[in-house]
Amino acid sequence: MSASAAKIHPSASDLPRGFTFAAAHCGLKKYKLDLGILVSETPAVAAAMFTTNQVVAAPVIVSRAHFKKSRNKMRAVIVNSGNANCCSGEEGLAASETTASKLAQELGGLDPSQILVCSTGVIGAPLRVEKILDALPQLLRSRRSDVTSFDEFSRAIMTTDTRSKWAGAKCRVGGKQVRILGCAKGSGMIQPNMATMLAFLATDAAIPGALLSRLLRAAVLPSFNCITVDGDTSTNDTVLLLANGESGASIRTEGDGYKSFGDALKSVCKSLALAIVSDGEGAQRVIEIEVRGASSDKAADQIARTIANSPLVKTAFAGADPNWGRILAAAGRAGVPFNYERVDIRLAGMEVCRRGREYPFDEQLAHEKMLAQHVPVLVDLRAGEGSAHIWTCDLTREYVHINASYRT
Amino acid sequence: MSASAAKIHPSASDLPRGFTFAAAHCGLKKYKLDLGILVSETPAVAAAMFTTNQVVAAPVIVSRAHFKKSRNKMRAVIVNSGNANCCSGEEGLAASETTASKLAQELGGLDPSQILVCSTGVIGAPLRVEKILDALPQLLRSRRSDVTSFDEFSRAIMTTDTRSKWAGAKCRVGGKQVRILGCAKGSGMIQPNMATMLAFLATDAAIPGALLSRLLRAAVLPSFNCITVDGDTSTNDTVLLLANGESGASIRTEGDGYKSFGDALKSVCKSLALAIVSDGEGAQRVIEIEVRGASSDKAADQIARTIANSPLVKTAFAGADPNWGRILAAAGRAGVPFNYERVDIRLAGMEVCRRGREYPFDEQLAHEKMLAQHVPVLVDLRAGEGSAHIWTCDLTREYVHINASYRT
Repeated sequence: MSASAAKIHPSASDLPRGFTFAAAHCGLKKYKLDLGILVSETPAVAAAMFTTNQVVAAPVIVSRAHFKKSRNKMRAVIVNSGNANCCSGEEGLAASETTASKLAQELGGLDPSQILVCSTGVIGAPLRVEKILDALPQLLRSRRSDVTSFDEFSRAIMTTDTRSKWAGAKCRVGGKQVRILGCAKGSGMIQPNMATMLAFLATDAAIPGALLSRLLRAAVLPSFNCITVDGDTSTNDTVLLLANGESGASIRTEGDGYKSFGDALKSVCKSLALAIVSDGEGAQRVIEIEVRGASSDKAADQIARTIANSPLVKTAFAGADPNWGRILAAAGRAGVPFNYERVDIRLAGMEVCRRGREYPFDEQLAHEKMLAQHVPVLVDLRAGEGSAHIWTCDLTREYVHINASYRT
Repeated sequence: MSASAAKIHPSASDLPRGFTFAAAHCGLKKYKLDLGILVSETPAVAAAMFTTNQVVAAPVIVSRAHFKKSRNKMRAVIVNSGNANCCSGEEGLAASETTASKLAQELGGLDPSQILVCSTGVIGAPLRVEKILDALPQLLRSRRSDVTSFDEFSRAIMTTDTRSKWAGAKCRVGGKQVRILGCAKGSGMIQPNMATMLAFLATDAAIPGALLSRLLRAAVLPSFNCITVDGDTSTNDTVLLLANGESGASIRTEGDGYKSFGDALKSVCKSLALAIVSDGEGAQRVIEIEVRGASSDKAADQIARTIANSPLVKTAFAGADPNWGRILAAAGRAGVPFNYERVDIRLAGMEVCRRGREYPFDEQLAHEKMLAQHVPVLVDLRAGEGSAHIWTCDLTREYVHINASYRT
C-alpha cells in the first residue's frame, strides 16, 4: 500500500481506471467552478454514508432513494456548490431528480437511479436548477480521465475551503494493482456524523456491495467521524465510494486482498479528513486530542469531543496558550463521571498536569511548541481502557470574520 | 414587588438590613480590586447551588462541607478574583480552609464553618493565600452597610467582566418591607449548570433553610441555568443566598409572602443572568432563543441549547445575518427527532421560515432589526407542548481576541 497525499496533485498513475471527471462554472457562484461530475464509464458498485442531521437536504433524500432502487449500482455523481438545496421543499426534490434524469439521459439513456446527486452551499435559498441543466451537455462532453479534470472536479465542490483536498493509495489484490483516489470538501459546519460534508472516492477494484459498504464504514468511523471544526453537523454530509472493477482485481471475501484494500481505503479517508480539519475555517493548526484511560471508548469519545468543541480550548490554541486548566474544565463538563485527581495531561509533548494538578513546565517552551501546525494533546484519566482520538482546529478571529460576513 | 436593575447603582433603601460589604486589592491581580467580603452582622440562613462540573474547585469543596457542618447557618462570604484555586490539590483546600478560619477568628471567634469561600480566575495556578490573609484585618475594619461598599464588593469579584452586575427587588411580607439585593460576575466559561459563575444574594427576610433552598432553586433554574456564553460550564460556579431576618418579616410556609418573595427573587436572578449574557466576552447583543411545539420541555431545552451554542449561529448574529438555515441545521443535530417540514422560525420578530422552507422576507429589514441589543428567535416545531427559553450572545472576533491572548 502506498498513500500519496503529500504530493500537490495526483499523477496519472494514481487515477483509477475507467473513471472520468469534469467541472464547469454554471452560474450558481459568481466566478468560480460550481458544478462537477464523476463518471464511471462502466457500471460500478457504490457505497455511501449520509448525514444524521434531522434536517436533510433534497439531494441526500434523492440519492438515498436511488441507492435503494438501483441496488447499489451507480454510474455517475453530479455535485454543485453554491447552494445546499436544503429546506427547499418539493421544488428542491424535483431539482435533484431532474438533474439526475438529464444526466442519465445524456449518458446514453441510463436509469436515473444510477445517478447520485450532491449539493453544498447556503441552506434555505431556492436552487436555480436550470443553470445546472443548461451546463450539462457541455460538461459531459468535456469529461476526461486525466489529472487536470480530477483536479477541477475537486475544486468545483469547494465552498469556504481555501484549497482542494485529495488523497490516493494503491495496493495489490491477487497480483493486480488497485488504485483508490478521493477528494473532499468541507471547512465550516464540520462535525460529520456518519459522513463528512462531501467526499468522493473511486476505485478500480471489483467489490460486491455489502463488502464495499462494510469497508467504507470501517474507514469512515475513525477518520471523517473523528473530526470537528465547529461541532456543527451539516445537512448535506455525504461520502461516496464507487468501485468499477476496471483494474481486473476482485475482492470477494474477507480474505484475498480485503485487508490491504481496507488499509489503503482507511489511509485515504484519514488523509482527506485531516485535510478538512487543517483547512477548517480560519484554522492555523490541527489539534489532535487523544483521551485514554476512560471507563469506555464511548466515554473517551464524549470527553474528547467536548474538549475539541470547547470555544475556550480552541481560542487558547489560537493563542498557543498552554492553558491546560481549560482542557480539564471542558472534560469535566462532558457528562462523564471521572476523578480529576487522577488525570494526567500532555500538551505538545510536554507534561503539564499530573494527577489533576499543575506539573511545573517551561511555559515559554510550551508556547513555542504550540505554534506548530500539528499539536497533540493527551488526556489520560487513568481509570480504564477506553480511548478515543478526535482531530480539530483552533478557533481564530478569521473564523468569526468568515462566518459573520453578511451573505449578500 | 419592585425590581431596580435599571439604575446604575442601588440606593441606600435597596440595601437589605444587617449586611455589610468591603473590598480590597490584595495583590492577586496587578492593580484592580481582587478581594471582597459580604457579612451578615447577625446569623443568617443560607442556601447555595454549586457547579456540576466533574472538576470542582477547592473553595466549592470547602463551602459545601461548611454548609453541611453549620446546618445552613452562615455569617460571611469571602471571594477572591484572579485565581480559581482549582486543580490546586491539598494546598488549595488548605488555602480555602485557612481563609475561612482567619475570617471567622477576626469576626469574633466564630466557627469557620459559618464562612463561605469563593474564588474565580485562572485554573491550575497555585493561590498565593498569604496575600489574602495579610489583607483580611484591614478589609474587615473597612466593611460598611452602604452603597459604595456594595459597589466595590461587586467589582472585586470581576474577571473578564467589563462592568459589575447587580439587581435588587423589594416586596412586602406580613405588612413588612423585605429587600433582596444581589450581584454576579461572569463573562466567559458560562453555561451554568445548577448555578452561575458567582452570584451573591442577600435578603433581610427570615426564611428557614429548606424553604430558602426551594426558593433559590426555583429562581435559578429559569435564570442562571438558562444562559450560555460559550457552553463551557465553569469549575467554580456558585450562587449563594443569605437571609438574616433583620427586616422583621418572616416567611415560614408556602403561604404568607412566599409567592411575592419568590417572584422578587426570580426577578433579581433573571436580571443578573441577563446582565451576564449581555456582558458575555466580546458580546454585542443578547439573543433570546425560544423553542416551542417540541415533544417535551427537555427536548425543547436540548434544541435551544444546541442553537445557542452553535458557532455558526452565533457568528451569523455577530454579522446580523438572518441566516435561518444555520438555526434549523443546528436544531437538526441536537439529538432530538423532529420533522423539519413542520418548523416555523421567526427572527427579530419577522417570519423567515415556514414549514421548513424560506418564507420570503425583506433581508435588509431583517438585518437592521438584528442590529438591536436584544434579538428574539422563535423556533416552533409544531409537534407538541414542550417549550424552553435560552439566552445567549453573539460570537465576535473580540471573544477570540480575549481568549486567545497568551496569559503571561
